[in-house]
Amino acid sequence: MSAAPIRFYFDFISPFGYFAALRIEELAARHNRTVDWNPFLLGITVIKVMGLRPVMETPLKSDYLERDVSRYARKHGVSFERGLRGQIDPSLYAARAHCWVKHHYPDRQAEMGLALYEAYWGRARPLGSPEEILAEAGLPDGVDQAAFLEGMTNGEASALLRSSVDSAIAAGVFGSPTVVVDGEPFWGADRFEDVDEWLRTGGW
Amino acid sequence: MSAAPIRFYFDFISPFGYFAALRIEELAARHNRTVDWNPFLLGITVIKVMGLRPVMETPLKSDYLERDVSRYARKHGVSFERGLRGQIDPSLYAARAHCWVKHHYPDRQAEMGLALYEAYWGRARPLGSPEEILAEAGLPDGVDQAAFLEGMTNGEASALLRSSVDSAIAAGVFGSPTVVVDGEPFWGADRFEDVDEWLRTGGW
Repeated sequence: MSAAPIRFYFDFISPFGYFAALRIEELAARHNRTVDWNPFLLGITVIKVMGLRPVMETPLKSDYLERDVSRYARKHGVSFERGLRGQIDPSLYAARAHCWVKHHYPDRQAEMGLALYEAYWGRARPLGSPEEILAEAGLPDGVDQAAFLEGMTNGEASALLRSSVDSAIAAGVFGSPTVVVDGEPFWGADRFEDVDEWLRTGGW
Repeated sequence: MSAAPIRFYFDFISPFGYFAALRIEELAARHNRTVDWNPFLLGITVIKVMGLRPVMETPLKSDYLERDVSRYARKHGVSFERGLRGQIDPSLYAARAHCWVKHHYPDRQAEMGLALYEAYWGRARPLGSPEEILAEAGLPDGVDQAAFLEGMTNGEASALLRSSVDSAIAAGVFGSPTVVVDGEPFWGADRFEDVDEWLRTGGW
């Protein structure tokens, strides 16, 4: 594991972020790389930085996305219980929780990311508070639950997330998932074959 | 060629439409399908229907797109001379010209589409008037040049394009390229493997 980690940028609100999360560790391990998991918030990037509207409020594209997500889940046999329409639970608390666990237990970042994603998209569970996160996703073994709850309420987790969002924007990330390999960004779960080839060949 | 044609929706202004155009006929032929080429105008779809801003005026995404397009061209060895920045020649006349040729010479629609795309993106030539189209892309052998110039100025070509744009929007098309196989839409040149599998298996 001498080479730099792959940077994986995602929002828990993003279904294609979920699909990518299910594959990223295996992809990285195949090339002797680790993964640096970086949550960000599409609400900030898309609306405030890019000046666009949320994708599920965008005519034509929202219909397509709904169909495309369900087609992907069928093809890959992925559990996918949550619909894209109607009230979408915000991903803010999930992202804060991930940042806190990653900061204090970096070797648990993949496990925590997958637990949150599987609860949110795979089982359509709400992650709208620290208590719901404990109940629905849980914490990896060995993570201090009292310290977690403290960090989720005393501003520590939110400060960590703000820093994660800022660094995603500074890296030019605008969509979820984005994978950055040695400075080269790839947007979209459908670019994993390119990521794989870039890792194998060193780029073109 | 008994099955329905594949519907290929594209804007000549779209570099990924160009990349897709270079592959779509071969992909269809492999499955004994023909291709129905349908130009539309992203300017109408993106700005008027979807309420977004042009992609090259969108922060973060415009930088990524520029890098992604050039990366694709290098990987696939595609001629690509036109930059994405600065003054982009509009695709209106190219789209009108394609609609006119397709209407009167349907078996030349692929040849005309490729000639326009290769002039525009492969050689960075201007296609901003009927005369420039004749000089830079040319017409397929046997196409009546005087009738073409007449149709480009008497409103026929523009009416055909309006109809093509309307039918793209009615089909839910919002991005270039979009390929529709038996009612199933696939957005993006990076989805050609899915299109291929859908054609081979009949879907999932």
